[in-house]
Amino acid sequence: MSSGKILVAQGGGPTAVINQSMVGVVLEARRFRNVTRVYGAMHGVRGIVDEDFIDLTQETSHNLELVGKTPSSALGSTRDKPDIAYCQKIFDVLRAHEIEHFFYIGGNDSSDTVRIVSLEAQKAGYPLRCIHIPKTIDNDLVGNDHTPGFPSAARFVAQAFAGANLDNAALPGVYVGVVMGRHAGFLTAAAALGKKFPDDGPHLIYLPERTFVLGQFLADVQAAYARYGRCVIAVSEGIHDASGEAIASLLAKDIERDAHGNVQLSGTGALADLLCEEIKSKLGIKRVRGDTFGYLQRSFIGCVSDVDQREAREVGEKAVQFAMWGERDGSVAIKRTGYYSVDYELVPLDSVAGKTRVMEDIFISESGTDVTDAFRLYLRPLLGSGMPDAFRLRPAPVEKILGKT
Amino acid sequence: MSSGKILVAQGGGPTAVINQSMVGVVLEARRFRNVTRVYGAMHGVRGIVDEDFIDLTQETSHNLELVGKTPSSALGSTRDKPDIAYCQKIFDVLRAHEIEHFFYIGGNDSSDTVRIVSLEAQKAGYPLRCIHIPKTIDNDLVGNDHTPGFPSAARFVAQAFAGANLDNAALPGVYVGVVMGRHAGFLTAAAALGKKFPDDGPHLIYLPERTFVLGQFLADVQAAYARYGRCVIAVSEGIHDASGEAIASLLAKDIERDAHGNVQLSGTGALADLLCEEIKSKLGIKRVRGDTFGYLQRSFIGCVSDVDQREAREVGEKAVQFAMWGERDGSVAIKRTGYYSVDYELVPLDSVAGKTRVMEDIFISESGTDVTDAFRLYLRPLLGSGMPDAFRLRPAPVEKILGKT
Repeated sequence: MSSGKILVAQGGGPTAVINQSMVGVVLEARRFRNVTRVYGAMHGVRGIVDEDFIDLTQETSHNLELVGKTPSSALGSTRDKPDIAYCQKIFDVLRAHEIEHFFYIGGNDSSDTVRIVSLEAQKAGYPLRCIHIPKTIDNDLVGNDHTPGFPSAARFVAQAFAGANLDNAALPGVYVGVVMGRHAGFLTAAAALGKKFPDDGPHLIYLPERTFVLGQFLADVQAAYARYGRCVIAVSEGIHDASGEAIASLLAKDIERDAHGNVQLSGTGALADLLCEEIKSKLGIKRVRGDTFGYLQRSFIGCVSDVDQREAREVGEKAVQFAMWGERDGSVAIKRTGYYSVDYELVPLDSVAGKTRVMEDIFISESGTDVTDAFRLYLRPLLGSGMPDAFRLRPAPVEKILGKT
Repeated sequence: MSSGKILVAQGGGPTAVINQSMVGVVLEARRFRNVTRVYGAMHGVRGIVDEDFIDLTQETSHNLELVGKTPSSALGSTRDKPDIAYCQKIFDVLRAHEIEHFFYIGGNDSSDTVRIVSLEAQKAGYPLRCIHIPKTIDNDLVGNDHTPGFPSAARFVAQAFAGANLDNAALPGVYVGVVMGRHAGFLTAAAALGKKFPDDGPHLIYLPERTFVLGQFLADVQAAYARYGRCVIAVSEGIHDASGEAIASLLAKDIERDAHGNVQLSGTGALADLLCEEIKSKLGIKRVRGDTFGYLQRSFIGCVSDVDQREAREVGEKAVQFAMWGERDGSVAIKRTGYYSVDYELVPLDSVAGKTRVMEDIFISESGTDVTDAFRLYLRPLLGSGMPDAFRLRPAPVEKILGKT
């Protein structure tokens, strides 16, 4: 006897398209005759253990379509990182509500939660199908060509640097833009796609995949500034020294703040400000400005890749199809099949869970401060259609009269 | 005997649409039979004194249209603030090149430059028509309903807060977004247009038109957090205490940094970080995040108001028409004539030059932490068409089984 109940939840940091995956699950599930109820858990796993569910069977398709186009997690999210006991609690609630299919949209922590819940169900001999649906702006899930959410965040970063480069060209100086991504540099590297003309910025890109050496950084900036009369720099929040210590902490120590001044270093403007301070004081450049893209890069409404929208929707749909037609639990993975097209596979949960992908070496230039053409080819189709473009006046100099030189 | 030469230049901070005004001048001027050359000065007044001109008569209309749609100043800008001697130098160069019409696109500093150059020409008996063309994201020019550049920046801020609100709803906590505008709060107030549902943020807005009292701020945040379980706050970079001292400086002093730690306070993430620190330590709220929108709000490519584009183009066109058909120098001003339409007037340069408009009292709520409907009506049409919209799932709670309460 089947209850025909399914449950979907969203975990981790919101993305621009995570609602497409949720809506993909709900609309696809409602097409199956054996599905009687589609529940959504509020605020991820926290809502499961609290039994905080809403009935998505009672939501119009039209509103679901509109919510799908809305960024952030419509069901809410959580930063709870379930341990074994927490996962057992999740399983108890699922069993009590006779949930037979569990879909959890999230990053590698979330896939680990799905993996443990799946094991608990097997141990208890309870028929629960568990599917992990990928999302992360960091693009750090293994086994995926890329992950939903990353293309839209990458588009924001590329557009931000395209604009910052124009601004910096109008009022020359040094500009430092700090981008999210603690371990994987994909999102920072996306800055390179904001470049059109050979002298456009970003002129330098610093990734967590390479060791950051302050002296080399300053030399790089000085050389670029000498060459272009200005310098636009993309920096990952995750840059670190050879020992793995975060550069933000190291620079803050240099400034020798008192105990009171130990401000939080992640999720703040500290790294950008500290790097700007170094450039100003060590290189003697006057106009140095820093921005930390912060939450804008994952939450800004109105900057989204249509390719990302489509794929996020499809991983949700495919998750339901894998659950209904397949015989095993797993994580939906995106595979690239053409330039540009994708297909979806169900891969084992333990091949994704708790693992972190970083940028492959072929994507990083030898200098370590730029990306390769392989990366440009990899990322460009993901950004989608309608990317804004920048145009320049063509040179036609007028002869000087007074200051003839 | 007329030379038929005109010169256009761009000053101050770039905007998303300042190139539309430049292109409006160039294309309109090229339609007049008496115009023989259209020059552009590179990097504003700096390019004039350096005789760094390009010939825009030799640029295709098609490329000009594309440059018009590109943000930032295609001719480059400058932070030079000309004094009398500098303005005399400008006039000398204009006379040497037989420039007869001078168009300068900029804020109130730029209008003052135009005013002085105009006086120099009159004193010398040299026939020079000088027209100031308005632009500023701060919206702080007197005599204008609003200024080109502001609507697009306001749209960015509204979209940013619409997204930040969704993110904050998914992962509840306190979010502080710091917005540009040292004296005028218009751009910060635009955050209110990101709000759709009654419980949406921004829940609090702090403007430079009102005195900032830290204790009251903390009480406001505590009350909003108690009411909504979260709090989204828009803060102007220009907030100050009763004596006019910047809050960023005051808070930094509290932290008692040593001489080494005197980091620059404007154009950095310091204010957001310091306010977050206060909220965390004084209110004991754990999840507190701050973003400083920085240069993104004026340079981001791909977030522009079509109304702003059109008007920026028209102030450029009208400037040429006022110059060619009129008898006097002046500044082009935008007047609102309907809901929504505008017309343009040429107002005296000294009515604009060096003056600063701030938000009118009717635009600020009595609490001082919100805007009025009058402001919403004022701003909404400026944001243009195609504003992204946010949708929610409708409540349909599922009965609890285990944790019956």
